[in-house]
Amino acid sequence: MNEKILILGADGYIGWNLMMYLGVRNKGRVIGVDNLSKRMQIKEVATESLIPIKSMQERMEVYVEVFNKNNLTFHNIDITDSKLLEKVLKETKPTVIINLAQMPSAPYSMQSLKHAVWTTKNNVIGNLNLLWLMKEYCPDAHLIKMGTMGEYGTPNIDIAEGFFEIEYKGRKDTLPFPRQAGSFYHWAKVFESQHTNFANKIWGLKATDLMQGVVYGLSTNENQKDPRLSGGYYYDGIFGTAINRFVVQAMCGEPITPFGKGNQIRGFLNIKDSMKCFELYINNPPKKGEYRIFNQLVEQHRTINELAEMVKGIGEKKGYKSVIKSIDNPRVEMEEHYYNVETSKLIGLGLKPCDFEKEIERMFDDLKPFIEGVNKESIKPKINWR
Amino acid sequence: MNEKILILGADGYIGWNLMMYLGVRNKGRVIGVDNLSKRMQIKEVATESLIPIKSMQERMEVYVEVFNKNNLTFHNIDITDSKLLEKVLKETKPTVIINLAQMPSAPYSMQSLKHAVWTTKNNVIGNLNLLWLMKEYCPDAHLIKMGTMGEYGTPNIDIAEGFFEIEYKGRKDTLPFPRQAGSFYHWAKVFESQHTNFANKIWGLKATDLMQGVVYGLSTNENQKDPRLSGGYYYDGIFGTAINRFVVQAMCGEPITPFGKGNQIRGFLNIKDSMKCFELYINNPPKKGEYRIFNQLVEQHRTINELAEMVKGIGEKKGYKSVIKSIDNPRVEMEEHYYNVETSKLIGLGLKPCDFEKEIERMFDDLKPFIEGVNKESIKPKINWR
Repeated sequence: MNEKILILGADGYIGWNLMMYLGVRNKGRVIGVDNLSKRMQIKEVATESLIPIKSMQERMEVYVEVFNKNNLTFHNIDITDSKLLEKVLKETKPTVIINLAQMPSAPYSMQSLKHAVWTTKNNVIGNLNLLWLMKEYCPDAHLIKMGTMGEYGTPNIDIAEGFFEIEYKGRKDTLPFPRQAGSFYHWAKVFESQHTNFANKIWGLKATDLMQGVVYGLSTNENQKDPRLSGGYYYDGIFGTAINRFVVQAMCGEPITPFGKGNQIRGFLNIKDSMKCFELYINNPPKKGEYRIFNQLVEQHRTINELAEMVKGIGEKKGYKSVIKSIDNPRVEMEEHYYNVETSKLIGLGLKPCDFEKEIERMFDDLKPFIEGVNKESIKPKINWR
Repeated sequence: MNEKILILGADGYIGWNLMMYLGVRNKGRVIGVDNLSKRMQIKEVATESLIPIKSMQERMEVYVEVFNKNNLTFHNIDITDSKLLEKVLKETKPTVIINLAQMPSAPYSMQSLKHAVWTTKNNVIGNLNLLWLMKEYCPDAHLIKMGTMGEYGTPNIDIAEGFFEIEYKGRKDTLPFPRQAGSFYHWAKVFESQHTNFANKIWGLKATDLMQGVVYGLSTNENQKDPRLSGGYYYDGIFGTAINRFVVQAMCGEPITPFGKGNQIRGFLNIKDSMKCFELYINNPPKKGEYRIFNQLVEQHRTINELAEMVKGIGEKKGYKSVIKSIDNPRVEMEEHYYNVETSKLIGLGLKPCDFEKEIERMFDDLKPFIEGVNKESIKPKINWR
């Protein structure tokens, strides 16, 4: 790989790990951009990463030390300010742009009107700035944008990869798959996808859009070399996601808590698989003018209850006894539904996913040195959709 | 009708005419809200309404004089400021809220990144504020929101009224009809519709969402009583719409200018029919928790070329000779496509539409006193999508 890669949202859970992952594999520079807003939000909601997150400065220094490579750069700017983003694009002329600069939490967006508005502006305007400025300054760069499987909701039909051919009243067309998001955060993601598709159509950009499942795990080949390289690990009611939260609950003797009936099904993938996907997209770019969507997940056939059982079982093997206890669902969502996601495009690119159960087993080992620091109070969901 | 009606966007082409239309028919108050931004945009793009638009103050005084009723109120506030909107909702406790507070022009939104961002923020954040504050202060009010037929684009299948039942790979569901908007303005409308549907689902509001066709005409039963009551008439390349622009072109000896091949088809309705629709929705409200979509248009079977021919023919009968001359299409859109919109719900409510050709004939008469004031230069489209 010999690209000039710009990563927006480089300070995040995916962002920082991807900086390193692409950094060690790429001959060219990897340029990170972030407004560090996630660090502020973490403080605001009074939680923290279970594994301490070092400053970008320190992590970049450790990266040079560990990998003996000096090809990462970082700019602390907010891409909702188009002038600042314009400056970066003009100066760096990237060949690949990865947009992960989105506030990533559904509960965070549902806390108040102020939070819903902030999420919408931050995510949608940042991406709109990027699309317009790409047209002006780097129309041939490959845009890789982070969407979410949550954009589709839980329809009673198979979930196609972004578009599907349908027949309605005797006529056929290939149309965008309907979006039924479940929070203002998820809707902001939908809006970004719709803008990206449109911008691509009128300006002939080339774009890969990921509908990513829920990411679990913490270790990558890079961050395990030194704890100061961690990308963070959240288990709280706002930034923690299902499996990551369940593992911490099992380890610290708290009940594992599915929401409501617990028969919800979602798609999952390990953080290492997420890394590999980006590499595959970069090495297999779309054609000029092409807008393509990948459903990025590898596990999708167990209910939340079944995942809770699995985590409980693996925990027991590791010596952690726990119980499963359903709690009132803070969200408005179907708790019993059909779920079948088409994912053949990713397999077509050659993704070989990690072993699901082995990775969860490994999480117990990797988290062990940090588990004493858990703030049990922060695990409970505090934001109600209603 | 005995409602407390709040109209957001009360200074606009639809807004002001609707203030009067509902004012004369309603026993309760009609409260208008607007930030007057359209007046600023009109100045910004160096055009003006062909019929002078008086200040809100003056129009409200003339309304009292003409209709001998004193039931209109106006607040000059910007609903993207949630504190200001909150104050109005708390003080007025409306039973019906009509949200027309959207920047209404596709070309305006495509002028620059700044304009695209402004349109997105203004339209989407204003509506998001409204939804959240309705939940807090008037969850039983009937929300009527202005969307556009342009949200659907031009799919190769019939356009359902917001939702459609489809079969895909042997399974069925009723899903949101896919949106394929054609400008950042149209996308902002889509985002508002998606937010409204979601807010309704989680908070049990009651909402009527209109996918309105292109409105043409100028006279309503109210504004024709006094020229100072005009809601405005735009024929320029940014705020003027097809039929309104064609009539002015025919009257002032300029060629009538379809874009590109001219085989595009759109839905249209007269401004008087638009007024009647709002009355029908208010008198036939949705149930609590219901989100319903109407495709609001009455004419949809002529291509833009055929409409140009019709306007030309009517003009000739009135003594105006004109030619039709296609110009390069400034937009990115299909110029040859299938178009069939389902509109049975509106007919079901009892709408009896105006006569299309007679209304266009009448426009020639109504515009005659003003036609000398045309600024021919402003008719040409100046904003290119590419």
